[in-house]
Amino acid sequence: MELGGRPVSYGVFSTAGGPPRLGARLGDRVVDLSAAGIFRATTLNPLMAAGPAVWREVFDQLADVDLEKHSHPVEGVRMHRPFDVADYADFYASVHHASNVGRIFRPHGAPLHENWRHLPIGYHGRAGTIVVSGTDVRRPAGPLGPGEFGPTRKLDFEAEVGFVVGVPSDGPVPIDAFADHVFGVCLVNDWSARDVQRWEATPLGPFLGKSFATSIGAWVVPLHALDLARVPAPAQDPVPSAYLRAAKPWALDLALEVRINGHLVSSPRFADMYWTADQQLAHLTVNGATLRTGDLFASGTVSGPAPDQRGCLLELTWDGRDPLTLPDGTTRTYLEDGDTVTVSATAPGGLSLGEVTGTIREAHS
Amino acid sequence: MELGGRPVSYGVFSTAGGPPRLGARLGDRVVDLSAAGIFRATTLNPLMAAGPAVWREVFDQLADVDLEKHSHPVEGVRMHRPFDVADYADFYASVHHASNVGRIFRPHGAPLHENWRHLPIGYHGRAGTIVVSGTDVRRPAGPLGPGEFGPTRKLDFEAEVGFVVGVPSDGPVPIDAFADHVFGVCLVNDWSARDVQRWEATPLGPFLGKSFATSIGAWVVPLHALDLARVPAPAQDPVPSAYLRAAKPWALDLALEVRINGHLVSSPRFADMYWTADQQLAHLTVNGATLRTGDLFASGTVSGPAPDQRGCLLELTWDGRDPLTLPDGTTRTYLEDGDTVTVSATAPGGLSLGEVTGTIREAHS
Repeated sequence: MELGGRPVSYGVFSTAGGPPRLGARLGDRVVDLSAAGIFRATTLNPLMAAGPAVWREVFDQLADVDLEKHSHPVEGVRMHRPFDVADYADFYASVHHASNVGRIFRPHGAPLHENWRHLPIGYHGRAGTIVVSGTDVRRPAGPLGPGEFGPTRKLDFEAEVGFVVGVPSDGPVPIDAFADHVFGVCLVNDWSARDVQRWEATPLGPFLGKSFATSIGAWVVPLHALDLARVPAPAQDPVPSAYLRAAKPWALDLALEVRINGHLVSSPRFADMYWTADQQLAHLTVNGATLRTGDLFASGTVSGPAPDQRGCLLELTWDGRDPLTLPDGTTRTYLEDGDTVTVSATAPGGLSLGEVTGTIREAHS
Repeated sequence: MELGGRPVSYGVFSTAGGPPRLGARLGDRVVDLSAAGIFRATTLNPLMAAGPAVWREVFDQLADVDLEKHSHPVEGVRMHRPFDVADYADFYASVHHASNVGRIFRPHGAPLHENWRHLPIGYHGRAGTIVVSGTDVRRPAGPLGPGEFGPTRKLDFEAEVGFVVGVPSDGPVPIDAFADHVFGVCLVNDWSARDVQRWEATPLGPFLGKSFATSIGAWVVPLHALDLARVPAPAQDPVPSAYLRAAKPWALDLALEVRINGHLVSSPRFADMYWTADQQLAHLTVNGATLRTGDLFASGTVSGPAPDQRGCLLELTWDGRDPLTLPDGTTRTYLEDGDTVTVSATAPGGLSLGEVTGTIREAHS
């Protein structure tokens, strides 16, 4: 779905001295939706809440914008967090990722837990520490083992795809009503401190190992702009419960790339995920949990079957056993202070989902 | 801490036809803080954000309110959710609760996981489904086991004490800075579907088993009003890491009571908790996680050493093995449709923390 040959995505930008406001990105230009008389807001939330008819209307109006008058070059603007996050849930939807994690942490057990193929496993994360791409991430300290406390020695990234809820719901969202509620897609990096996570996570799941920061892309691609990226979903065995069965199961064919300091280290494909976004939303709400505008749910680490398709360092270095050698000759087990991680993605037809990037700062002394 | 012999707590109320507004409860009267010219807001958040000096000022001004002119009888007002919840975290701080859960679910293993005495275990819950006391709770459906889906057969309550953050923080909150950030205390019932929770919770923790609803009391008791309830914290072995050691470890001596349909079923004491609230806040932020006004963190189920001090049905009925006989002759393993659960608490000197109550409605058909 393009507009005059130009893909579209939405974000919140400001120019020198100006307040944050809504923008639509068309190639290397950022349309000021307020100045163009299309939509006036300081976050995406009011637009997201307005629903599919308004989303389409705004999209259509972009065709008539006078770019000379109402747009800025993208290099000249400052980007802000695109929406106020309500609740943040994160899934664990790649069978390759979940199996690798199982092999690493439970070498003598089955790679997958018994429940994994029956339901999309997920947990709630911390919404208040979600930051926009470009924000530095400070190395967290935390408990590392019995009597041991300090800065994490196993700081990792997780390349993920996130889905943003626009239209609220008072109860279960049937799987085929996905597009009535979900506004769009953004890239996510769910930073993780593996040593903290491993020590704390039994029995209630990750907490400090993830809650220090989660980065999201500055640009949200509206769902309808990804129609061309729809592909059939992978087969599932066993057949899941009725609430997880779509009339026509679909996935999104997004090609992700992960770079450390500019060096490509992984190229996972989002279409390889076992559990799909519509299944995740149906699952999230099947117990009656309500949805709010700004709810974000992410896919979990996107990993493919090949070694160069692993979406985190835990897998890429097998928890440090097999260090990664970067083209500059340095090696990595986990992230070092000063490292910059960038996750980008494209959809068929050249549509860019932008990138999510962040640089590691040293721990608080 | 009382005011003219009358304890104080804060909430959001409305009268017939009127908008929600801030109220202070003095005994059986609700002072309209807006009408009395003290503080004008529709949620507690602006007052909570204003900080300790303003909290004390508002409290002091209550002494001069003309109750005839600016208050309503508490039976005549409708209560609303007292604050907008930012992030919701829940801990697992009772050694008796955690040990009982271990004995029930892992009868052949150690009752406590290896990490339990080293750090306050917690997880993030769903902020968007936090409802005010008095709101009905619909029995959730969810996955119950391989290929099995339906309404939970093990619907439980969890009697807890919650702490509400007023003043934000950009980084770690030292344990002795607790009172600079925490506005007050409210009761919490963390409703739980034990069958769903048990099936889904490995390895990322509870999700659908808890996310359908969490009830909080309508009244928030300011922290300074609980000074008289402070008692020394229980000893901890091993001695925890430095960030968890207060200059003068304290706990709160609150006597909780849990009733099903009016019948007392449990009387746990909050002073019996192993991990204390200041330790929880220090832990929550030690990794650099920021705090926002409206963040809520709850203690986890409050259970004492005696069988009649267990704060949930999982423990009280030993997962259904030992049904509870109520004084009306009926028995319970878990909650039935129509059951009303009420958690109340008092502090020394007769200060009431109010109650949190909810009635179970049948599952969606």
